[in-house]
Amino acid sequence: MTDETRGRIGCPVAVVLAHHPVLNRRGEVVTTSVTSLDIHDIARSARTYGADPYYLVSPIAAQREMVERIATRWVDGVEAGHPRGEAIGRIRVAASIEEATDAFAAEIGGRPWRVATGANLRERLTTFAGLRRDIRAGTWPGVLLVFGTGWGLTREVTEGADARLEPIPGLEGFNHLSVRSAVAIMLDRLLGLDL
Amino acid sequence: MTDETRGRIGCPVAVVLAHHPVLNRRGEVVTTSVTSLDIHDIARSARTYGADPYYLVSPIAAQREMVERIATRWVDGVEAGHPRGEAIGRIRVAASIEEATDAFAAEIGGRPWRVATGANLRERLTTFAGLRRDIRAGTWPGVLLVFGTGWGLTREVTEGADARLEPIPGLEGFNHLSVRSAVAIMLDRLLGLDL
Repeated sequence: MTDETRGRIGCPVAVVLAHHPVLNRRGEVVTTSVTSLDIHDIARSARTYGADPYYLVSPIAAQREMVERIATRWVDGVEAGHPRGEAIGRIRVAASIEEATDAFAAEIGGRPWRVATGANLRERLTTFAGLRRDIRAGTWPGVLLVFGTGWGLTREVTEGADARLEPIPGLEGFNHLSVRSAVAIMLDRLLGLDL
Repeated sequence: MTDETRGRIGCPVAVVLAHHPVLNRRGEVVTTSVTSLDIHDIARSARTYGADPYYLVSPIAAQREMVERIATRWVDGVEAGHPRGEAIGRIRVAASIEEATDAFAAEIGGRPWRVATGANLRERLTTFAGLRRDIRAGTWPGVLLVFGTGWGLTREVTEGADARLEPIPGLEGFNHLSVRSAVAIMLDRLLGLDL
């Protein structure tokens, strides 16, 4: 991130996509599989809005290696020079949300404010406007936005976060946005330059 | 769409995802393949924001049949009852953007205002705020938002539209959002209830 970009955003903002611990349809704690599309779509959204790095979290080593293989292919391999390479270059892997938090903390030189997201969050919510204001003001050394795959982050993760971001309101109570769409919309609301 | 929902949005808004005529990386006019993920992600975004219907446009009959098979599977088949079924139910297919426009016109009883989108649009642009205001005011019988796959809609389509929506501004000139992310962000900016 250039200094100019950082100046326009406020504090550094990073994205975590957690594949564990997350819930399945029946509310059980599971580990989901990393998908190629989650890697690409979210990397492109993160890069568009200056969120950096984008951490893919999985406790499964083979999954983390797959992510690194895909990232390498775009940055150094056959697809080098394609605009996607620039987005993919901001990808990091981590075995846990804690590990991603520590890595981001080391990068920014301070403890980031960890914000959980989820379509079902209802209590003690931070608003988009409030978080946007704090990012601009540089209230914290950095902000780590944590997204869950599957049916969302566990209660333990959302309760353990520093804050919970209000869900995107859908019509008639329907919000079943894909995590890819939710990340895109939330980054736009928090970091969109013209809003 | 219920009357209440329509009242909150303003006029009916529909989404077109065009697989032809669109550009490839070299600027040639091509027909792209329909992907399962474009069907699902965009259907879920459209349903979340009350955009209805969601037209998938392809001149290839086999592609349109594939879309209908997938839609049927979620609405009536093995996945019936899953929340995604409700989103997928709003899908329609059309052989051309013209055909989708005519179908939407028949549904709303008037000619819709056809708005082209694209990351590279630069001239005679409609702003998000302006279009949002017109949708709320019910300036037209309906609004048809047209998105291109691949490297975007052809110049003929964007020039032939009634309006061209301003692109989502990225940092440092980088906007390579996936079409799925772009649809999500634009629907949020135009129809998000709390904005």
